Amino acid sequence: MTIRFSPIGTVHTRETKLPRHCSVSNVEGALEIFKEYQEGIKDISAGDRIVVLFHFHKSPPFTPGLLHQTPPGRSRAKGVFSICSPVRPNAIGMSVLTVLEIRENIIKVKGLDMMDQTPILDIKPLAPGSLPVEKDRE
Amino acid sequence: MTIRFSPIGTVHTRETKLPRHCSVSNVEGALEIFKEYQEGIKDISAGDRIVVLFHFHKSPPFTPGLLHQTPPGRSRAKGVFSICSPVRPNAIGMSVLTVLEIRENIIKVKGLDMMDQTPILDIKPLAPGSLPVEKDRE
Repeated sequence: MTIRFSPIGTVHTRETKLPRHCSVSNVEGALEIFKEYQEGIKDISAGDRIVVLFHFHKSPPFTPGLLHQTPPGRSRAKGVFSICSPVRPNAIGMSVLTVLEIRENIIKVKGLDMMDQTPILDIKPLAPGSLPVEKDRE
Repeated sequence: MTIRFSPIGTVHTRETKLPRHCSVSNVEGALEIFKEYQEGIKDISAGDRIVVLFHFHKSPPFTPGLLHQTPPGRSRAKGVFSICSPVRPNAIGMSVLTVLEIRENIIKVKGLDMMDQTPILDIKPLAPGSLPVEKDRE
Protein backbone atom coordinates (compact mmCIF):
# COMPACT_ATOMS: atom_id res chain seq x y z
CA MET A 1 0.00 0.00 0.00
CA THR A 2 1.32 3.42 -0.93
CA ILE A 3 0.12 6.56 0.83
CA ARG A 4 0.70 9.80 -1.02
CA PHE A 5 1.21 13.22 0.51
CA SER A 6 1.98 16.62 -0.97
CA PRO A 7 3.85 19.37 0.89
CA ILE A 8 1.83 22.26 2.34
CA GLY A 9 4.88 24.50 2.43
CA THR A 10 8.65 24.85 2.58
CA VAL A 11 11.21 25.65 5.28
CA HIS A 12 13.52 28.60 4.73
CA THR A 13 16.66 29.17 6.77
CA ARG A 14 20.11 30.57 6.09
CA GLU A 15 21.62 28.32 8.72
CA THR A 16 23.57 25.41 7.33
CA LYS A 17 24.86 23.94 10.60
CA LEU A 18 21.75 22.72 12.30
CA PRO A 19 21.43 21.33 15.80
CA ARG A 20 20.41 17.73 16.24
CA HIS A 21 17.14 18.55 17.91
CA CYS A 22 14.81 21.50 18.03
CA SER A 23 14.76 21.56 21.83
CA VAL A 24 18.37 22.66 21.81
CA SER A 25 18.04 24.93 18.80
CA ASN A 26 17.89 28.71 18.68
CA VAL A 27 17.96 28.77 14.92
CA GLU A 28 15.43 31.11 13.36
CA GLY A 29 13.82 30.75 10.00
CA ALA A 30 10.52 30.79 8.22
CA LEU A 31 7.85 28.33 7.24
CA GLU A 32 6.39 29.36 3.91
CA ILE A 33 2.89 27.94 3.72
CA PHE A 34 1.64 27.65 0.17
CA LYS A 35 -1.03 30.24 -0.64
CA GLU A 36 -3.78 27.66 -1.07
CA TYR A 37 -3.37 26.64 2.58
CA GLN A 38 -2.89 30.13 4.05
CA GLU A 39 -6.39 30.25 5.55
CA GLY A 40 -5.52 27.17 7.60
CA ILE A 41 -2.92 29.06 9.68
CA LYS A 42 -5.16 31.98 10.66
CA ASP A 43 -5.40 30.85 14.30
CA ILE A 44 -1.68 30.44 14.83
CA SER A 45 -0.21 33.37 16.78
CA ALA A 46 3.17 34.68 17.89
CA GLY A 47 4.23 32.81 21.02
CA ASP A 48 2.48 29.59 20.07
CA ARG A 49 4.41 26.36 20.02
CA ILE A 50 3.55 24.20 17.07
CA VAL A 51 4.29 20.64 16.04
CA VAL A 52 5.65 20.52 12.52
CA LEU A 53 5.77 17.29 10.55
CA PHE A 54 8.13 17.35 7.61
CA HIS A 55 9.85 15.21 5.02
CA PHE A 56 13.52 14.32 5.55
CA HIS A 57 13.99 15.03 1.87
CA LYS A 58 17.75 14.49 1.80
CA SER A 59 17.72 11.06 3.43
CA PRO A 60 19.06 8.12 1.46
CA PRO A 61 16.66 5.25 0.79
CA PHE A 62 15.99 3.01 3.78
CA THR A 63 17.48 -0.48 3.71
CA PRO A 64 17.10 -3.37 6.21
CA GLY A 65 20.67 -2.77 7.43
CA LEU A 66 19.45 0.54 8.88
CA LEU A 67 16.95 -1.06 11.28
CA HIS A 68 19.74 -0.66 13.86
CA GLN A 69 21.74 2.56 13.88
CA THR A 70 24.34 4.04 16.22
CA PRO A 71 23.38 7.65 16.91
CA PRO A 72 26.19 10.25 16.82
CA GLY A 73 28.01 10.33 20.15
CA ARG A 74 26.63 6.98 21.26
CA SER A 75 28.43 3.68 21.44
CA ARG A 76 25.55 1.28 21.00
CA ALA A 77 23.28 0.71 18.03
CA LYS A 78 19.59 1.14 18.72
CA GLY A 79 16.43 0.15 16.90
CA VAL A 80 15.38 2.83 14.43
CA PHE A 81 12.03 3.33 16.16
CA SER A 82 13.80 4.29 19.40
CA ILE A 83 15.87 7.05 17.83
CA CYS A 84 15.20 10.19 15.80
CA SER A 85 17.46 9.40 12.88
CA PRO A 86 16.41 11.04 9.61
CA VAL A 87 17.01 7.69 7.90
CA ARG A 88 13.88 5.69 8.68
CA PRO A 89 11.39 3.50 6.82
CA ASN A 90 9.15 6.52 6.29
CA ALA A 91 11.30 9.65 6.30
CA ILE A 92 8.98 11.80 8.38
CA GLY A 93 10.44 14.27 10.87
CA MET A 94 8.73 15.96 13.81
CA SER A 95 9.79 19.21 15.46
CA VAL A 96 8.26 21.51 18.02
CA LEU A 97 8.89 25.15 17.11
CA THR A 98 8.08 28.51 18.66
CA VAL A 99 6.20 31.00 16.50
CA LEU A 100 7.82 34.46 16.44
CA GLU A 101 5.59 36.22 13.94
CA ILE A 102 3.06 35.56 11.21
CA ARG A 103 2.77 37.64 8.09
CA GLU A 104 0.34 36.44 5.46
CA ASN A 105 1.53 32.94 4.54
CA ILE A 106 4.91 33.17 6.30
CA ILE A 107 5.40 31.83 9.84
CA LYS A 108 8.64 33.06 11.38
CA VAL A 109 9.87 30.46 13.86
CA LYS A 110 12.62 29.72 16.34
CA GLY A 111 14.01 26.32 17.18
CA LEU A 112 14.56 25.05 13.67
CA ASP A 113 16.34 21.78 13.14
CA MET A 114 15.29 21.35 9.54
CA MET A 115 17.35 22.10 6.48
CA ASP A 116 16.57 24.88 4.06
CA GLN A 117 13.99 23.75 1.47
CA THR A 118 12.59 20.99 3.69
CA PRO A 119 9.04 20.10 2.56
CA ILE A 120 6.44 20.68 5.30
CA LEU A 121 3.70 18.03 5.59
CA ASP A 122 1.54 19.22 8.49
CA ILE A 123 1.27 21.61 11.42
CA LYS A 124 -0.50 20.58 14.63
CA PRO A 125 -1.27 22.56 17.77
CA LEU A 126 0.65 22.20 21.01
CA ALA A 127 -0.78 23.44 24.30
CA PRO A 128 0.44 23.35 27.88
CA GLY A 129 -0.38 19.86 28.98
CA SER A 130 0.77 16.47 29.74
CA LEU A 131 3.20 14.90 27.43
CA PRO A 132 6.92 15.47 27.27
CA VAL A 133 8.85 15.01 24.05
CA GLU A 134 12.38 13.69 24.22
CA LYS A 135 15.11 16.24 24.60
CA ASP A 136 17.95 14.57 22.80
CA ARG A 137 17.73 13.61 19.19
CA GLU A 138 19.71 10.45 18.86
CA MET B 1 5.55 17.09 -5.63
CA THR B 2 4.26 13.77 -4.31
CA ILE B 3 5.89 12.05 -1.34
CA ARG B 4 5.18 8.35 -0.99
CA PHE B 5 5.08 6.37 2.22
CA SER B 6 4.25 2.76 3.00
CA PRO B 7 2.84 1.57 6.33
CA ILE B 8 5.22 -0.15 8.76
CA GLY B 9 2.33 -1.81 10.57
CA THR B 10 -1.34 -1.84 11.49
CA VAL B 11 -3.39 -0.90 14.57
CA HIS B 12 -5.62 -3.57 16.11
CA THR B 13 -8.34 -2.76 18.60
CA ARG B 14 -11.79 -4.12 19.37
CA GLU B 15 -12.94 -0.73 20.55
CA THR B 16 -15.23 1.06 18.14
CA LYS B 17 -16.03 4.14 20.22
CA LEU B 18 -12.75 5.91 20.44
CA PRO B 19 -11.95 8.95 22.52
CA ARG B 20 -11.07 12.14 20.77
CA HIS B 21 -7.51 12.22 22.03
CA CYS B 22 -5.03 9.71 23.37
CA SER B 23 -4.34 11.73 26.51
CA VAL B 24 -7.87 10.97 27.68
CA SER B 25 -7.92 7.41 26.38
CA ASN B 26 -7.62 4.19 28.34
CA VAL B 27 -8.31 2.07 25.29
CA GLU B 28 -5.96 -0.85 24.89
CA GLY B 29 -4.95 -2.49 21.67
CA ALA B 30 -1.98 -3.64 19.70
CA LEU B 31 0.38 -2.25 17.10
CA GLU B 32 1.32 -5.01 14.69
CA ILE B 33 4.68 -4.10 13.19
CA PHE B 34 5.31 -5.85 9.91
CA LYS B 35 7.94 -8.59 10.23
CA GLU B 36 10.44 -6.82 8.01
CA TYR B 37 10.59 -3.94 10.52
CA GLN B 38 10.51 -6.03 13.71
CA GLU B 39 14.22 -5.48 14.42
CA GLY B 40 13.55 -1.75 14.56
CA ILE B 41 11.42 -2.04 17.72
CA LYS B 42 13.92 -4.08 19.77
CA ASP B 43 14.71 -1.16 22.10
CA ILE B 44 11.11 -0.32 22.92
CA SER B 45 10.13 -1.63 26.36
CA ALA B 46 7.04 -1.96 28.55
CA GLY B 47 6.40 1.37 30.26
CA ASP B 48 7.84 3.46 27.43
CA ARG B 49 5.79 6.22 25.95
CA ILE B 50 6.03 6.36 22.20
CA VAL B 51 4.95 8.81 19.53
CA VAL B 52 3.02 7.06 16.79
CA LEU B 53 2.43 8.69 13.43
CA PHE B 54 -0.36 7.15 11.43
CA HIS B 55 -2.59 7.60 8.42
CA PHE B 56 -6.18 8.82 8.96
CA HIS B 57 -7.20 6.23 6.40
CA LYS B 58 -10.95 6.83 6.68
CA SER B 59 -10.83 10.58 6.14
CA PRO B 60 -12.60 12.04 3.12
CA PRO B 61 -10.49 13.95 0.61
CA PHE B 62 -9.47 17.42 1.74
CA THR B 63 -11.10 20.36 0.02
CA PRO B 64 -10.46 24.13 0.43
CA GLY B 65 -13.75 24.47 2.34
CA LEU B 66 -12.14 22.44 5.14
CA LEU B 67 -9.39 24.97 5.84
CA HIS B 68 -11.68 26.19 8.64
CA GLN B 69 -13.49 23.60 10.74
CA THR B 70 -15.59 23.77 13.89
CA PRO B 71 -14.36 21.06 16.27
CA PRO B 72 -17.01 18.98 18.08
CA GLY B 73 -18.26 20.83 21.14
CA ARG B 74 -16.87 24.17 20.01
CA SER B 75 -18.78 27.12 18.65
CA ARG B 76 -16.15 28.74 16.51
CA ALA B 77 -14.42 27.48 13.39
CA LYS B 78 -10.65 27.32 13.58
CA GLY B 79 -7.89 27.00 11.03
CA VAL B 80 -7.12 23.37 10.30
CA PHE B 81 -3.50 23.73 11.44
CA SER B 82 -4.67 24.78 14.92
CA ILE B 83 -6.84 21.71 15.48
CA CYS B 84 -6.34 17.95 15.42
CA SER B 85 -9.10 17.12 12.95
CA PRO B 86 -8.51 13.91 10.98
CA VAL B 87 -9.56 15.82 7.87
CA ARG B 88 -6.44 17.75 6.90
CA PRO B 89 -4.40 18.46 3.76
CA ASN B 90 -2.13 15.52 4.60
CA ALA B 91 -4.10 13.02 6.67
CA ILE B 92 -1.35 12.25 9.18
CA GLY B 93 -2.27 11.63 12.81
CA MET B 94 -0.02 11.72 15.87
CA SER B 95 -0.63 9.97 19.18
CA VAL B 96 1.40 9.36 22.30
CA LEU B 97 0.82 5.86 23.63
CA THR B 98 2.02 3.85 26.62
CA VAL B 99 3.65 0.50 25.91
CA LEU B 100 2.23 -2.34 28.00
CA GLU B 101 4.10 -5.30 26.57
CA ILE B 102 6.11 -6.36 23.54
CA ARG B 103 6.00 -9.81 22.06
CA GLU B 104 7.90 -10.38 18.83
CA ASN B 105 6.39 -7.90 16.38
CA ILE B 106 3.37 -6.95 18.49
CA ILE B 107 3.40 -3.88 20.74
CA LYS B 108 0.52 -3.89 23.22
CA VAL B 109 -0.41 -0.32 24.04
CA LYS B 110 -2.75 1.80 26.11
CA GLY B 111 -4.16 5.17 25.17
CA LEU B 112 -5.34 4.34 21.68
CA ASP B 113 -7.35 6.87 19.76
CA MET B 114 -6.92 5.22 16.39
CA MET B 115 -9.43 3.02 14.62
CA ASP B 116 -8.91 -0.67 14.03
CA GLN B 117 -6.86 -1.27 10.87
CA THR B 118 -5.23 2.18 10.96
CA PRO B 119 -1.97 2.12 8.96
CA ILE B 120 1.07 3.03 11.09
CA LEU B 121 3.69 5.24 9.44
CA ASP B 122 6.35 5.74 12.10
CA ILE B 123 7.22 5.33 15.78
CA LYS B 124 9.44 7.84 17.54
CA PRO B 125 10.79 7.88 21.08
CA LEU B 126 9.42 10.05 23.85
CA ALA B 127 11.43 10.70 26.96
CA PRO B 128 10.79 12.76 30.07
CA GLY B 129 11.62 16.22 28.98
CA SER B 130 10.49 19.52 27.92
CA LEU B 131 7.61 19.71 25.58
CA PRO B 132 3.95 19.36 26.36
CA VAL B 133 1.46 18.12 23.81
CA GLU B 134 -2.05 19.51 23.83
CA LYS B 135 -4.55 17.70 25.97
CA ASP B 136 -7.73 18.24 24.04
CA ARG B 137 -8.13 17.08 20.52
CA GLU B 138 -10.28 19.64 18.82
